[in-house]
Amino acid sequence: MPCPTLEPTVLTGDRPTGPLHLGHFVGSLRTRIELQHETRQFLFLADAQALTDNVGRHQKVADNVVEVALDYLAVGIDPDRSTIFIQSQVPELAELSQYLLNLVTVSRLERNPTIKEEIRQRGFERDIPAGFLTYPVSQAADITAFKATRIPVGDDQLPMIEQTNELVRKFNNAVGRDVLLECEAILSSVPRLPGIDGKAKMSKSLGNAIALNASEDEITRAVRMMYTDPNHLRAQDPGQVEGNVVFAFLDVFEPDAEKLSALKAHYRRGGLGDSVLKRILDRHLQELLGPIRTERRRFANDREEILAMLRKGTVRAREVAACTLSEVKAALGLNYFG
Amino acid sequence: MPCPTLEPTVLTGDRPTGPLHLGHFVGSLRTRIELQHETRQFLFLADAQALTDNVGRHQKVADNVVEVALDYLAVGIDPDRSTIFIQSQVPELAELSQYLLNLVTVSRLERNPTIKEEIRQRGFERDIPAGFLTYPVSQAADITAFKATRIPVGDDQLPMIEQTNELVRKFNNAVGRDVLLECEAILSSVPRLPGIDGKAKMSKSLGNAIALNASEDEITRAVRMMYTDPNHLRAQDPGQVEGNVVFAFLDVFEPDAEKLSALKAHYRRGGLGDSVLKRILDRHLQELLGPIRTERRRFANDREEILAMLRKGTVRAREVAACTLSEVKAALGLNYFG
Repeated sequence: MPCPTLEPTVLTGDRPTGPLHLGHFVGSLRTRIELQHETRQFLFLADAQALTDNVGRHQKVADNVVEVALDYLAVGIDPDRSTIFIQSQVPELAELSQYLLNLVTVSRLERNPTIKEEIRQRGFERDIPAGFLTYPVSQAADITAFKATRIPVGDDQLPMIEQTNELVRKFNNAVGRDVLLECEAILSSVPRLPGIDGKAKMSKSLGNAIALNASEDEITRAVRMMYTDPNHLRAQDPGQVEGNVVFAFLDVFEPDAEKLSALKAHYRRGGLGDSVLKRILDRHLQELLGPIRTERRRFANDREEILAMLRKGTVRAREVAACTLSEVKAALGLNYFG
Repeated sequence: MPCPTLEPTVLTGDRPTGPLHLGHFVGSLRTRIELQHETRQFLFLADAQALTDNVGRHQKVADNVVEVALDYLAVGIDPDRSTIFIQSQVPELAELSQYLLNLVTVSRLERNPTIKEEIRQRGFERDIPAGFLTYPVSQAADITAFKATRIPVGDDQLPMIEQTNELVRKFNNAVGRDVLLECEAILSSVPRLPGIDGKAKMSKSLGNAIALNASEDEITRAVRMMYTDPNHLRAQDPGQVEGNVVFAFLDVFEPDAEKLSALKAHYRRGGLGDSVLKRILDRHLQELLGPIRTERRRFANDREEILAMLRKGTVRAREVAACTLSEVKAALGLNYFG
């Protein structure tokens, strides 16, 4: 009894290490909100994956599972359209991962560019936790368990997709039939939102992020602190648009393209102060995040309902993953009891 | 609700890559038959572990699960006293393994002497499958999931016990309480049975083993081929007892110690032919293996009953492993749904 044929399936997740921020909203949440109307979608809270580099900080991870789920709901992800589940509550993923681990060598994992960069960032050097080195395999299990074929990722994650497809081919080859499906990356066309300090990536751990649940004051303060053109000392001076974080944000959040062009021209020739620009951006962010904050608060009031939603999604996800796993185990001959 | 306190628990397993042989009987099966009368015992068919270095040979592994179970029953392991289960059918082991993987570094695994030696034997060199390098972690999960504290092993496996206890301490330390138990090795006092060719270890893959299900003829042929003293060309010549495989076997299988001493003295001074000794050994082996063969055949006639026994043992094993895993996940804060 093969598993039911599925419509094209999209899968993405987040490590629950803190509430989500504007960078997530621009880079992935908006895409997910759109995709849920077009196709089947699974979203997961990757708590098990977060533990691979958070030993001893497990409570932070566990606490943030609900926080990230609140972010999902607050921005408009609809649990009736998107299946939201908790990774650690789908044991089939650990099982599948165990079988895929046999199909990749240690040196291949060490060559994975994403992992290499992450090892560098975390300062692991030679002391790489085995669970961290092998998390691309567990990620391949997450993807293949749901027969997901479309994976929205940033371009830094492309090696992960490649690794997944290698494992799919090796598995199918080892068992002599196509059990698992290859997937393809959906790359975002939106440029990545920089941190408020001008660093390439907005990140909670770098302290340069605007959280989705930021208060009005926090938003205003963050916008005021934003890196602009360090040589633009007086309003009447010409200023630079490139590398100016306020303009990078306006590129995303100013819906009126003509107005934005005019602002850029004005700034370049001089006579436009940073504070004017920042007020415009502040208004857009308040308009965007205000309703999200309200929604988030509403959902946060009923923790039981959030857990019930997560439980329902997890049950639904388990059904799919269990079916794939039973195919995998049958292909390996490990279906002793029928 | 803590898991029930358990009496001292013994756990061992076998990779189902072929039927068991006399070396297993002497080195571990006899101990298990005794232990099952003294204490709680789990025995498992390590099919998932066997897959770590048998990619593409999964059907062989799966087929040998029942063969090894037959060997267990044939030698007198009583499924009412010993819980016999199939590793791959207890998903809790893969899950626990996933969490333990975060607590050990890749370089620590690479320094494990048992793994180093096994990598050498298998010729993996730099192409070590990740699942193979990490199997000591999965072994630690097997042990700790059952809160097993006494592990019968050969001395070549001591680094595995050390690795397990390191992981236990790291886990308990990370969660701030004693969830997992440390274990100790039970070393066999019986010297290891050499291969019939004189090699230190009897092993099916070396082709120097006597299978527990060997026919009368196969036993006789194996005994005839046994390595003795290559310089003992004529019966009247003095012969050497040390390194003589027939005497190594008689040390184990000749119950009459006085008779054995006399034989050794006679052989040393000359006048005792190899064929006389081999006939004595052959008789002992036929007496030992005859009833085992009969029992094995009897059990083999009812494959359904074997599977029912394995299913029952697996259900019992899962209950225990699931309880430990729920403690582990609660300690990590991953018990969202209570």
